[in-house]
Amino acid sequence: MSAAQPWFEADAATIAAAVHGGTASATVVVQSALDRIAATDGRVNAFTAVTGERALQRAAALDALPAEARAALPLAGVPVAVKNLFDVAGLPTLAGSKIEREAPPATNDALLLRRLEAAGAVLVGALNMDEYAYGFTTENSHEGPTRNPHDLSRIAGGSSGGSGAAVAAGQVPITLGSDTNGSIRVPASLCGVYGLKPTFGRLPRTGSYPFVSSLDHLGPFARSVRDLALAYDAMQGPEDGAPGDPGCAQRPVEPVIGTLPQGIAGLRIGVLGGWFARNALPEAQAAVARVAEALGATRTVELPLVEAGRAAAFLISNAEGAALHLPDLRRRAQDFEPLSRDRFLAGALLPAAWVMRAQRVRRRYAEAVAAVMQDFDLLLAPATPCSATPIGTEWLELDGRRQPLRPSFGALTQPISCIGLPVCAVPVWGAHAALPVGVQLIAAPWREDLALRAAAALEATGITQAPVALLP
Amino acid sequence: MSAAQPWFEADAATIAAAVHGGTASATVVVQSALDRIAATDGRVNAFTAVTGERALQRAAALDALPAEARAALPLAGVPVAVKNLFDVAGLPTLAGSKIEREAPPATNDALLLRRLEAAGAVLVGALNMDEYAYGFTTENSHEGPTRNPHDLSRIAGGSSGGSGAAVAAGQVPITLGSDTNGSIRVPASLCGVYGLKPTFGRLPRTGSYPFVSSLDHLGPFARSVRDLALAYDAMQGPEDGAPGDPGCAQRPVEPVIGTLPQGIAGLRIGVLGGWFARNALPEAQAAVARVAEALGATRTVELPLVEAGRAAAFLISNAEGAALHLPDLRRRAQDFEPLSRDRFLAGALLPAAWVMRAQRVRRRYAEAVAAVMQDFDLLLAPATPCSATPIGTEWLELDGRRQPLRPSFGALTQPISCIGLPVCAVPVWGAHAALPVGVQLIAAPWREDLALRAAAALEATGITQAPVALLP
Repeated sequence: MSAAQPWFEADAATIAAAVHGGTASATVVVQSALDRIAATDGRVNAFTAVTGERALQRAAALDALPAEARAALPLAGVPVAVKNLFDVAGLPTLAGSKIEREAPPATNDALLLRRLEAAGAVLVGALNMDEYAYGFTTENSHEGPTRNPHDLSRIAGGSSGGSGAAVAAGQVPITLGSDTNGSIRVPASLCGVYGLKPTFGRLPRTGSYPFVSSLDHLGPFARSVRDLALAYDAMQGPEDGAPGDPGCAQRPVEPVIGTLPQGIAGLRIGVLGGWFARNALPEAQAAVARVAEALGATRTVELPLVEAGRAAAFLISNAEGAALHLPDLRRRAQDFEPLSRDRFLAGALLPAAWVMRAQRVRRRYAEAVAAVMQDFDLLLAPATPCSATPIGTEWLELDGRRQPLRPSFGALTQPISCIGLPVCAVPVWGAHAALPVGVQLIAAPWREDLALRAAAALEATGITQAPVALLP
Repeated sequence: MSAAQPWFEADAATIAAAVHGGTASATVVVQSALDRIAATDGRVNAFTAVTGERALQRAAALDALPAEARAALPLAGVPVAVKNLFDVAGLPTLAGSKIEREAPPATNDALLLRRLEAAGAVLVGALNMDEYAYGFTTENSHEGPTRNPHDLSRIAGGSSGGSGAAVAAGQVPITLGSDTNGSIRVPASLCGVYGLKPTFGRLPRTGSYPFVSSLDHLGPFARSVRDLALAYDAMQGPEDGAPGDPGCAQRPVEPVIGTLPQGIAGLRIGVLGGWFARNALPEAQAAVARVAEALGATRTVELPLVEAGRAAAFLISNAEGAALHLPDLRRRAQDFEPLSRDRFLAGALLPAAWVMRAQRVRRRYAEAVAAVMQDFDLLLAPATPCSATPIGTEWLELDGRRQPLRPSFGALTQPISCIGLPVCAVPVWGAHAALPVGVQLIAAPWREDLALRAAAALEATGITQAPVALLP
């Protein structure tokens, strides 16, 4: 056991405090993370690249700073890792693919990674995902599946499966992922960690591999709400200079870390029924019920047009994803992930008229939901229909029908992200199943603070928790 | 001859001054317009509906106002008419179609019409157009073609052909049209009048029939630059309350009427070469040369990616237009305009991947043009490849190739509107042809003022003019 081993259970706030106070060096903490990765990743398979040399150089540079300079860094010495669709200087940006192994190495880090490191974090590697972010299971045929740290026979969820698993496995306290239709909230749910999908347009996507420009969000994973808030605060704010992400809103930095203790008094919290109840197995229903009880939420509300909105998100993703990869789909379809290749090919054949109708449906659905949100500060729904399933599972019995499992994992997330609402996914354990399942705390646009305040309140009562997996 | 007859040659500013000063009543002026329409429209076919009763009631109401109230209305007593895709309360909004004759009558006027009338204008009718705005000739099979007032055997241009012809014929001094790919600038060019296509997002489109949401612009026609500016100023500003047009920018009113006398001193004016020179017949080239000389423009500049940008606009229009009419195309294709039915059907079959690529190409083209615009305040190009052609003409010899005439009339306008730049089209006479041809004065986004200042300078020198057609 390395001398640094104890750090793997610490959250980022604890690490930063230790580095600020001089009770740990960044080098010791980073070496601890590298050791933990070396000890566990053969089983978990969260990482596709470990940037040990870069990380130790960066840690040494942090340790060489004057103490006051270090103390000004809210994430001083905190090891982080990013889904491999974020640019990391010197690495090809794989986006989970085999094809992009041929891409030239990125020349710069992605903007959000630069912001995390500017706040004192230390990148230790890149993380596995579904190819081109088009999946919910991280059963990646090129890199092998990422395994759920709490049960290695099961999926970690996806598409940011490596990001969820690395945090659950105690490899790093903070990771970044992306969420187009649920790809942060699904692995957070299945791996039993916290995940934040901010409002669409909140965090600039410059330097990340796209999937669907009007649906792609970036966001953090963590094992504590304060870590989630620290990472989120470090990444907020529009770009300086020429924008690399035309979808990013010109919002000022609105720090949330100081708002967490405000609690939930006065918030109007509803529980989503209808579609969101029907598409949840008993463990997911029980998890929502437990959170609702803890938050004192008694009103149930149905969103209008949910199925139409979800169908719209499906079509838009299918068509735009395919359009992005059209030349490769034509020339070398055999090099795509077998589990998503046919979906991409189908997307290439979709008529434009369908997609345009889908865009109109999405706008109408957004308006209908906005009207409902007038009466609520937060809405609750399961993040996934169930807890993690065994790797290779093809079918799921849901809403009275046998359904293909892989797309079904997004049934409850897709109708929320397709209209850009901010969501914090919180992990609930022991509600009817051995493995965790997540609950979505859904707020109105730009009100990430409300979702995070409720998450902090739940965490404080122990209703939600994100323990490090044992991995004996 | 009616006592009011002399008013048909007056511009709006002259009419408003007379109404302000009490030398004419609104009723006399409006009756004069109705008489002129009655006397000429059997030949021109600009109007699809004349709202005489409403107009005379409105004129009487204006005449009943206290003099000071009337004097505060910049368009007091000015007869106007609108392309029949603007809602007019009590009329079905035809958008040039036969199918919409079955639509229920509009319950409100379109927002821009309300604004014009709030400024004192008086609606006298609705104007002919290409069906669903998908054409450049106003050869409307349902209503018959609108004829060019300066040569009744020739087209008026389109799709706002009635709007251009009504102004050229002296039926009204101001009309409104729409411009998706050139539909204001083309008829302005062929009818020898001024037309303004403002920056995309400047004027709210609430209450008008859409064609392509990301390309549709509304704007005025007039026979003098001050009239164009008066109408434009009366229509500026975002919507109060819930927006009916999500594409409308939150720009303040930026009145231009007072800036017209500032002239062009100091403006950097370039002449577009390459595509814009190759796709112009001698009369169009001569018109640009004359305007360039008058403005002291000596630098020629080529826009990068013009053909790709135009192709993108074609595909986006084709697909989105078809998507809008998909149910009718399926059920009753035989009721569509024969001249555009096949294009609509083709659009319904376009793959989404093509349109998404077109959208990316459009963004790239917009960035490339924005870089060029750093060095120029105005760019000059012909508005059409040639002056008005005989009704029924199918082919045009252009750029060394025999090309279908109808789409070719947008060759020079489409690459400008697809990136939203504001354009004033100004009419040049006697440059190599008996009929007029228009020149586009193209500015950077939100700089309508510069285009209109240059138009005013040209008008003052007599280089451009918009006489009323004789129609003996």
